Amino acid sequence: MSAAIDLLLEPDWIIPVEPAAIVLEGHALAVDQGRIVALLPASEAASRFQPRQHFRLPGQVLLPGLVNAHTHAAMTLLRGCADDLPLMRWLNEHIWPAENRVLSPQFVHDGTLLAAWEMLRGGITCFNDMYFFPDAAARAVHEAGIRAVLGMAVLEFASAYAVDADDYLAKGLKTRDAWRDQPELSFALAPHAPYTVADKTFERIATLAAQLDVPVHIHLHETLEEIDDSMRRFGVRPIRRLERLGLLNPGLIAVHAVHMQPDEVELLAQTGCAVAHCPTSNMKLASGIAPVAAMVAAGLRVGLGSDGAASNNRLDLLQEMRHAGLLAKVASGDATVLPAHRLLRMATLDGAAALGLDASIGSLVAGKWADLCAIRLDDWISRPCHDPASHVVYVADRGQVSHVWVGGILRIYDGLPVGTEPTRLIELAESWHNPRGTSHSASTLAS
Amino acid sequence: MSAAIDLLLEPDWIIPVEPAAIVLEGHALAVDQGRIVALLPASEAASRFQPRQHFRLPGQVLLPGLVNAHTHAAMTLLRGCADDLPLMRWLNEHIWPAENRVLSPQFVHDGTLLAAWEMLRGGITCFNDMYFFPDAAARAVHEAGIRAVLGMAVLEFASAYAVDADDYLAKGLKTRDAWRDQPELSFALAPHAPYTVADKTFERIATLAAQLDVPVHIHLHETLEEIDDSMRRFGVRPIRRLERLGLLNPGLIAVHAVHMQPDEVELLAQTGCAVAHCPTSNMKLASGIAPVAAMVAAGLRVGLGSDGAASNNRLDLLQEMRHAGLLAKVASGDATVLPAHRLLRMATLDGAAALGLDASIGSLVAGKWADLCAIRLDDWISRPCHDPASHVVYVADRGQVSHVWVGGILRIYDGLPVGTEPTRLIELAESWHNPRGTSHSASTLAS
Repeated sequence: MSAAIDLLLEPDWIIPVEPAAIVLEGHALAVDQGRIVALLPASEAASRFQPRQHFRLPGQVLLPGLVNAHTHAAMTLLRGCADDLPLMRWLNEHIWPAENRVLSPQFVHDGTLLAAWEMLRGGITCFNDMYFFPDAAARAVHEAGIRAVLGMAVLEFASAYAVDADDYLAKGLKTRDAWRDQPELSFALAPHAPYTVADKTFERIATLAAQLDVPVHIHLHETLEEIDDSMRRFGVRPIRRLERLGLLNPGLIAVHAVHMQPDEVELLAQTGCAVAHCPTSNMKLASGIAPVAAMVAAGLRVGLGSDGAASNNRLDLLQEMRHAGLLAKVASGDATVLPAHRLLRMATLDGAAALGLDASIGSLVAGKWADLCAIRLDDWISRPCHDPASHVVYVADRGQVSHVWVGGILRIYDGLPVGTEPTRLIELAESWHNPRGTSHSASTLAS
Repeated sequence: MSAAIDLLLEPDWIIPVEPAAIVLEGHALAVDQGRIVALLPASEAASRFQPRQHFRLPGQVLLPGLVNAHTHAAMTLLRGCADDLPLMRWLNEHIWPAENRVLSPQFVHDGTLLAAWEMLRGGITCFNDMYFFPDAAARAVHEAGIRAVLGMAVLEFASAYAVDADDYLAKGLKTRDAWRDQPELSFALAPHAPYTVADKTFERIATLAAQLDVPVHIHLHETLEEIDDSMRRFGVRPIRRLERLGLLNPGLIAVHAVHMQPDEVELLAQTGCAVAHCPTSNMKLASGIAPVAAMVAAGLRVGLGSDGAASNNRLDLLQEMRHAGLLAKVASGDATVLPAHRLLRMATLDGAAALGLDASIGSLVAGKWADLCAIRLDDWISRPCHDPASHVVYVADRGQVSHVWVGGILRIYDGLPVGTEPTRLIELAESWHNPRGTSHSASTLAS
């Protein structure tokens, strides 16, 4: 007798990520109550299951939903407002002044909502965020129906959100308490960077992280200035300072990790830290080239991040996969490093592992959440297709993402958002952009 | 009294490329008999012109058509058939054996036709090609209505196309004669590379290029192996060998130019040579990073090329612009090099100049051919848009290209090809891909 289930998907190809580096044809994925029930030959599925919904997905490949291991979602509203500048000038002269003018819960809600839908449109089903007003971000995440790890941001200096490190922490923890029953949401402690957080605060974060069992999400070794600054102020490079403060452990998500000496790669590997590699942001800000091939060889969990839209300018993991592969090949002088299947794993399972979520998402294994994306490989400009994995990494645009599910719930159908209207999202973006707009004080946003 | 013209275009923004680095609002472009008549305020256009066709293009930016300064168009049929390999293994073990199995006029026609439509779909209106059977390519170019510079390929070794260098040259020149009255077609001598062409042949090519006033299109300084090989066989690096053979002059299009010493950049600048920079191919094959910022600073004409689909795997100048910018920034450690407007110029006017066509295409100046592309910047995933030039370079996908004209003739309308059907292009690609296909002998294409 066949079992009733919620959903059966039959694409032309399935790349489950686990087992590694395979492409299945003639298979189906069965989903019930938000979770993957089975991945099996389509012929068997027909006799074993009675699906309430049945999607045939011709010309499409089904993958685990992509995991964006580092972003500042609300910064979609600052997209393209200051390009072609190095990090510290970009921050000091453009981004921080702009944020000072506009930062509010409404800004964070609206920017995060736009970001969530932009990410869903590109097959991203989970993101790791670091920004202000996480409560406003949580509302947007919940509304869009995406999965997220929200950072409880900590800096020493005041913003519209909080006055000092203790205040940031108190507000972050309160938000975490308020949202702790939402299965799609989890939280990380998010000290901004070594140059914006004091030792005392780092110590408190290390203690809290252990007590609460939450990850610590931090920008680390992004630029040479950061390292010089640390040498001047603390006599050691930032990674050694974090080691001293007890922060190097499997809960640490080191974002960027661009300027890494071999012993530092080894140290992160030995202590079980994870890395969020952001190739586009690192190139655009001329921060440098992270030694990703060496990190992967050392056994580090390396996920991929888009960074914020202000330094990228897209929240697009298909692009980050391509850029991670291209950059690692040319930087290492070895075209064989990070082949397509490895990049697919970085954008899914390795990203999930970096966030500590690989037991529940990141591959198409029974029992995990049905976070899924289908990508069309049959449109007329991307023919012929000799290898679906190659096509996803080297050919596909996010415009080819057809359907996206989060926890078994359809969020993108044939390229369109489910549960909201594109016109509503456009109006939201324009309300912050229009210089004559009265609803928000964003008239100088792009100055 | 107002003048009758063929076409008036009124987009939200126009980036004419000349004058440099401006974005016009409230302007219109007037076109008649295939050429640009005027770029003027929309209000003036209304009184001056009576257009037979009038396109309002809300939410769209109008640019000169993009110029692909180096490709092997027919290799679309080999897209993704061998990834994650270095150049010489990729050529020797995969591409050349595959070509030996399938190379024919029909292969070149069909592959070039697919490539032409893929390029048009992405706003490319002119490409510089190097492949076998240029007569077959010319038929495809004519059929698709794109502009092209077709290479008269020359190698020392035999292929299905020709038996030796003299035979390649004779066949190339015959093709040029046959097509010389087509305004959209021109020809270049295309010696494949320093490692596949003998001195005697280069001398003959130098003489012919001067006699016929055609460019010389060659792969140059792509890999370290190429340079080592030249040192061993000729005692000099390839650029010095070409200098000795009289090939360094304004007609030379040096493709890749990755491994360049400062004196070699200087030499190319002094002799007026042009460069076709192919960032994606250079990264994917781990060939190296061309010193583009230095080349541009030295005053070299640097266009952008996609290379063939087998080493990229897309023919997409929007992607090449983005990759050229990102790579130059990170390689030079300077985020301010190659800002968005400069990249737009490389993908249009500088590419045209590299091909010797800047008097007739590459910018929106009265008298030039109306080779144009319109790109939609108003879709819901790319909002907000603070700066259209930034958005074209850092945000837009080729899927956002809405309309394309070549010589004033509409080739892409709302993302779809004009004059052919997507289904026909899909069937064409599949006829070479389907392992059970009987019409072509491509069963082992992807082996």
